[in-house]
Parts: sequence; C-alpha cells; structure tokens
Amino acid sequence: MILGALETGGTKMVCAIGNEKGEVFEKFTCPTLNPGETLETIAEFFENKNIEALGIGSFGPVCLDKKNPKYGFVTSTPKPGWADTDVAGFFERRLKVPVGFDTDVNAAAIGEVTYGGCQDVDSMIYITIGTGIGVGVYIDGRLVHGMLHPEAGHILVKRHDKDDFEGGCPFHQSCLEGMAAGPAIEKRFGKRAETLYDNPFVWELESYYIAQALVDYCLCYSPRRIVLGGGVISKDGLIEMIRKDFTKLMSEYIQSDELREIDKYIVLSTLKGEQGIKGCLKIALDARV
Amino acid sequence: MILGALETGGTKMVCAIGNEKGEVFEKFTCPTLNPGETLETIAEFFENKNIEALGIGSFGPVCLDKKNPKYGFVTSTPKPGWADTDVAGFFERRLKVPVGFDTDVNAAAIGEVTYGGCQDVDSMIYITIGTGIGVGVYIDGRLVHGMLHPEAGHILVKRHDKDDFEGGCPFHQSCLEGMAAGPAIEKRFGKRAETLYDNPFVWELESYYIAQALVDYCLCYSPRRIVLGGGVISKDGLIEMIRKDFTKLMSEYIQSDELREIDKYIVLSTLKGEQGIKGCLKIALDARV
Repeated sequence: MILGALETGGTKMVCAIGNEKGEVFEKFTCPTLNPGETLETIAEFFENKNIEALGIGSFGPVCLDKKNPKYGFVTSTPKPGWADTDVAGFFERRLKVPVGFDTDVNAAAIGEVTYGGCQDVDSMIYITIGTGIGVGVYIDGRLVHGMLHPEAGHILVKRHDKDDFEGGCPFHQSCLEGMAAGPAIEKRFGKRAETLYDNPFVWELESYYIAQALVDYCLCYSPRRIVLGGGVISKDGLIEMIRKDFTKLMSEYIQSDELREIDKYIVLSTLKGEQGIKGCLKIALDARV
Repeated sequence: MILGALETGGTKMVCAIGNEKGEVFEKFTCPTLNPGETLETIAEFFENKNIEALGIGSFGPVCLDKKNPKYGFVTSTPKPGWADTDVAGFFERRLKVPVGFDTDVNAAAIGEVTYGGCQDVDSMIYITIGTGIGVGVYIDGRLVHGMLHPEAGHILVKRHDKDDFEGGCPFHQSCLEGMAAGPAIEKRFGKRAETLYDNPFVWELESYYIAQALVDYCLCYSPRRIVLGGGVISKDGLIEMIRKDFTKLMSEYIQSDELREIDKYIVLSTLKGEQGIKGCLKIALDARV
C-alpha cells in the first residue's frame, strides 16, 4: 500500500511517501510560505506518486469536527495568511484521494501507539516541548478531539519560588508554554536554550514546570504512559529531573503498577523524530477505510 | 424495563429503582458503615425488585479496567474497611444480574448527557465541588477511563495573591481540592462554607480557584459544556463570578461558538441533585446489552 503523509508546521512542511507499516520511502521538505504557493508545492510532490490516501498532522488551531463546514481548516492561527485555510479540502480536491486530518501532536501520539514504543497501551499522551508546547491525547483506544482539540500546553502553572519571569505567552503570560517553551527560556535568560546547558538553574525551572504539567495531565487523562518530544527535551539528564519532580509533586496520590516504574512511565519517543510523520501514515490508513 | 441504581458515597449509599427513561420510582438511603454490613443491606433492598441490571456510581479510587482482576473494586481508599472491596462482583454474585460500574462523577456526567441538559453535546465534563472535588469526563461520546480514571480534582493551582492558606490536601496541600473543597474553606476561615455567604473574600477565592481549574479542564478536554454540581456551588451568584473569572483567565485563547455564550457553556446541573442516580440507571442500561 502506498500512503502519503504531511506534517504541517509553522516554519516548514514535511511530506513523505510510506506504507501501512509506518515505513517511509521518500521525504520532501519545503518552507511554510503563503498557503496558496505552499499547498501547491506539496500537491505537486504527491501527484503521480499513486498514494491511496493522505494523512495530515497540522499545526493549529484546526477544526476536527466533521459536522462543521470548517472541518479540515486551519482556523484562527496568528500565522500570516493561514487563518481560515481549508487544508484537508484542498488536497481532497487536488489529489482525489481520501484525506485524514488531525493535529500535529495527535499525529505524533498515534505514531507512537501504532509504530513506536506505545503499541502495548490503550491510553497515552505525547507532549512536545519546543517552540510551543502541545499535547496529543490518545485515551481508551482513540485520539481525543472534543469541541476543538486539546490545547493543554497552555494550562496555568504555579510559579517556581525563585522565578520572577513574567511569562512569555501573549494570551496567559505565565501558562506552561509561557514559562517553559523554548522562546520562554530565551526571553528569561537572554540566550537560546541549547546554549544554556551548563546553567543548572535553567533546567531546575524547566523540570519543575514540565513535571507540574505532567502531574496535571496524569490526573486529568490518567494515561498509561507519557512520551516527551521536542527540542527542549533533548537536554541531557532533563528527563531524569522531570521524573524526580513528578514523583515528588504527585506525592503517591495515584497508585498504579505503571507509576511504580517511573522510568517506563515518563519516556522519550522511540521513533527518533519520525513519530509525527509516521502518525500521518496511520491517519492516511484510517482515512482509506 | 426495571433497572437498579446505586450511588455509593463516603457517608451514605443511595439506591433507586427506575427505568431506561431515567424515571426513578423508589429510593432508599442507608449510611456507609463497614462494607459487609452495608453491601448486604443494599442487596436486600434490590432483592425481589426484578431489576434487569444494576448500575453503580462509586466513590473512589476504583478499578475500571476490565482486564484487571480488581475490576469493580474500590481500591486504595483511606475510608476504614473499604480498601480492596469488590463492590461490582458482590452484587453480580448476590443479585445475579449484569452490573455496570463507574465513578460517581462519571455517573453524574452520563446522567447529564442522557437525561439532563447535555443531551445535545458529545463532549462535556461534570465537576462536583463539595467535601471533595471530582470531575466526570465524557468526550467524543464516551466516558473517559484511561489507566485508572481522571482524578482531576487534585490538579495543582496557582495561589491567589491574597491567600496565605497552606492548603488542606494531605497529598498535595495546595492542589484544587486542598484550596477550594468545602473542608478547605472551613479550615481556612474556621467556619463552614454555608455560614460564610456574607463574606465576599471567601467567594472571591473560591471563584478564582474554580475558574482556574475550569480553564485547565477546557484546555485539556476541550468539552462542549461544563456542568457544575456539589454543595459549595449552591452559593448564590458564585457561578456568575466563576464565568467572569474564567473568561478573564482564558483571555480569548480558545475561540469557539460555545465559548462565545459563556452562560450556556458553564452551567448548573438541570437534574436537581439526581444526575448521579439517573446516570447509574444509564450505566445499568448499558450493562444489560
């Protein structure tokens, strides 16, 4: 089976040709310019590739409600030109194949569950901590959508005692994304996160905020595993700090076999950055049937 | 059709006989004493009533994983005598009818969706704020379970500027339940919440903490409606304060038709305290098929 996969991002678009086993045969990347030009470039890549379906994991916010006329649209994004763009509909009309559509983080979550280290669980969440913070939610065997889709990167967090940074989120200032995403680190310390690896205070704060959010997600979603991805998380030793802070903050309130093995509960992605694009292959597969 | 409904609580047990339309014909209440005695009293009530199935909404934590040998148990509760009690199994064996089992707050959520004011939505959450704080989660047409079940009453919250109360939760001190449940109000102000109706500071704090939690729930679950129940919420005018604080804290980050009509988004239960027991009738109905 030949399937198409498209991960749309704020700065670049990743396209791939693969199959139902999550194998990727060919990849193509292009910058995210204005929608007309960018979508056409992508369509030209997929044309004549004989794909049976296309799966899209999109930056948001998007409309995932099939009863809504805006299903498949990127909706109120601040990204210039992209608000109210019918992404799924464009490719359906242009490529004449079934198109599946979900958020980028839900795509990564379904990638982990289908092809990665979460094939053994029916409930998990995937969190990316990079330019922004996003959460993909797979519970009781299904991706969670709801009214819109989870936007759990913006939950409100307690301030760390020693942190006086006002926060970087234009909506909530000191929400999780405002305190812990890459740009928040850069704004607080005046340097990019990857140049601050030798400053322990940076990572003390980072671990505290991420662990706090994971406690809230664990209480809200009750996932069987938590997978971390994104640029910020690649700092050596950070995940160990997060596990420790999580255990302390949770304070044995939730008792389960999963939580007793914290090293297997809070983990890194096993798909080496391909969780999103592989998830899009699964979304394509599901669109076909 | 004759169905049995049982809401188990830390202080009392509510039993009812009703039907698939959510009509309640007969009710019986008994105190929650030791499990042997209490479950037997309940079984005697249901005997010879010709119920086709029993639906239970239980205080927790409970095991809802059908693959787990402890399915249907109340598990690690601090309530004396009740840890590791096989509630669902007891009634299955004793009454020889199918038994459905879920949390008390999930029962209230499914009650609202099936018989109450949420029949028009496929995603909603039900929050009870009383002796404890619990959240029932119904997303994309199904109750959410996961590893255990949501315990979202314990999410961590930002402290109000003028609040120096250390918090009343034995696990997390200043989590939502520790700051805003009935016992937290009583511990902070030295008097029960219902005697503090004329002290505006009490309700300023209460509204702030609840609204903050609702913002987090809205971001995590993306529900189409939020229903509030429980003793604390009966304070006149409190829901209006919560709606106002919610709108301010959310800061227009999520844009949806539902959120534009906040009076219809954050609402009180329409089932006048019967949301839980009616939900148990629906759980019984679903156990039958």
